[in-house]
Amino acid sequence: MNTAPERTGMNGIDQPGFEAALSRRAGEVERVLDALLGLGLLSGEVARPRELMAAIRHGVLGGGKRLRPFLVVESAALFDAGGEAALRVAAALECVHCYSLIHDDLPAMDDDDMRRGRPTVHRAFDEATAILAGDALLTFAFDIVADEATALPGETRARLVTKLARAAGMGGMAGGQALDLAAGRNRPDEAGIVRLQAMKTGALIRFACEAGAEIGRATEAERERLAEFGSAIGLAFQLADDLLDATSDAAALGKAAGKDEDAGKATLVSLHGIDWTRRQLDGLVAQAGELLEPFGDRAALLRAAARFVAARTS
Amino acid sequence: MNTAPERTGMNGIDQPGFEAALSRRAGEVERVLDALLGLGLLSGEVARPRELMAAIRHGVLGGGKRLRPFLVVESAALFDAGGEAALRVAAALECVHCYSLIHDDLPAMDDDDMRRGRPTVHRAFDEATAILAGDALLTFAFDIVADEATALPGETRARLVTKLARAAGMGGMAGGQALDLAAGRNRPDEAGIVRLQAMKTGALIRFACEAGAEIGRATEAERERLAEFGSAIGLAFQLADDLLDATSDAAALGKAAGKDEDAGKATLVSLHGIDWTRRQLDGLVAQAGELLEPFGDRAALLRAAARFVAARTS
Repeated sequence: MNTAPERTGMNGIDQPGFEAALSRRAGEVERVLDALLGLGLLSGEVARPRELMAAIRHGVLGGGKRLRPFLVVESAALFDAGGEAALRVAAALECVHCYSLIHDDLPAMDDDDMRRGRPTVHRAFDEATAILAGDALLTFAFDIVADEATALPGETRARLVTKLARAAGMGGMAGGQALDLAAGRNRPDEAGIVRLQAMKTGALIRFACEAGAEIGRATEAERERLAEFGSAIGLAFQLADDLLDATSDAAALGKAAGKDEDAGKATLVSLHGIDWTRRQLDGLVAQAGELLEPFGDRAALLRAAARFVAARTS
Repeated sequence: MNTAPERTGMNGIDQPGFEAALSRRAGEVERVLDALLGLGLLSGEVARPRELMAAIRHGVLGGGKRLRPFLVVESAALFDAGGEAALRVAAALECVHCYSLIHDDLPAMDDDDMRRGRPTVHRAFDEATAILAGDALLTFAFDIVADEATALPGETRARLVTKLARAAGMGGMAGGQALDLAAGRNRPDEAGIVRLQAMKTGALIRFACEAGAEIGRATEAERERLAEFGSAIGLAFQLADDLLDATSDAAALGKAAGKDEDAGKATLVSLHGIDWTRRQLDGLVAQAGELLEPFGDRAALLRAAARFVAARTS
């Protein structure tokens, strides 16, 4: 991280403090994922093929900020909930995120050779193994959420499965990726770009925050508030991403840069420019803060997360 | 179907009677799938992209015997359960089956151009769309099972999600496909082949029968019995498939034939020959019948399903 330390007395947590908390949660989630993705069998499993598991672990355990898991755990913590159940839902969400990266990197999709400074799964293994690793990870995410080891009532586990599926599926992330692949030829207008991004990257981030509220048995109003917070930072995440893509070089990103322009894809940055985008980001951080108002100081880490997402440099 | 009619007074249902029942159930499941995979949005979905949905519908609604859904519905019927919940779980299972066909057909996997006499999804659309269509279908399967519209208690829906995920995932179908892709170079022994097949094709068929028992609130002993029945006909299904691959031509199969031999993959048929395989199939049908003994005449359609699977010619 080369972000300059930022003092924000009002919100109680400065940037280094936030990054330490993010990193601590990432370690916890990584440990859960490491244990879940070992070679030990769960009841009902016949065998876990070694090479497939190695590919899955390459795709999941290769670092990453673990922002989505952080949002699940910290949203649940607003309601004094969490512990093992929140960590498991967080780990499941990260499996969905990592599956999407593995598939998006495939030659038929974005055709990327590097991810987080390492070979992508289909480069480190092969294409068939990458497809299956993604399929297996996506499948396993629902196993994790629904399993009774996720100590929540059956109705809650089932509801989390449905919500995760809607966020990830044809009306969410997968649909957004389909729209994105077609964007080069379909040239969506501004509303189309916003919708595409709400699906492709926003839906999982929204789910992360809403899931925390579900785990915390929040009221419907609180749940909606957290979901809206998730949508705001999801949009900020994408704007920051587009800004990075427009201004960074490959070394800073750890992956190929300038791909949007290469692909002839419009983004809000290409439509409105860099200054407009920075103002939008400021507005989204403010909006995120307002949505968290009722939670007071308890939401300090989530407020810091919004600032972090908007200001991120990698 | 060019199977000669078979009279089996003891079991009450002859082959044409069974095929009529299978076809009627297939129609019911097709209607459920057609409705679920329309352009109408479920709550939480942002948009369903038209081309992606067309690819999904191409992959799902293109015919097929719907054997797995049949097994769900008829297993549930043993316990006087069923109706909408059984049909929805059946439809979800068919989504998982169809996703696996879409991905298995991809160039990086089995590289098939035709399926059920029509172009495969990546040939009719493109490779990226086929990958995403499979991803979205797999995701949607869990949505369908977990949704409260599947009128079962939350604990049951969650348990069905976990079991479906284990049958389909790294320790089940996806793991089996990974083992199968490696079989050309790894040359598994007989035990390895049996395990591979139990994962690749057996696990979903076993789940189908076990799910019916779950839906029917069966006792644990009954559920185990149905699961074992599913394993027996799953193995029979694969043996019949290997037999077909060894003896048929492409025209009868509607897809490329003789691929196992081309790929240098051993099957139980190549290890033991055709006569041994036919005797095994007879033994599995008998075993399946014995497992259904306690259910008497009510299980006549499931007994007929076992005979059908073992004798199938397409």
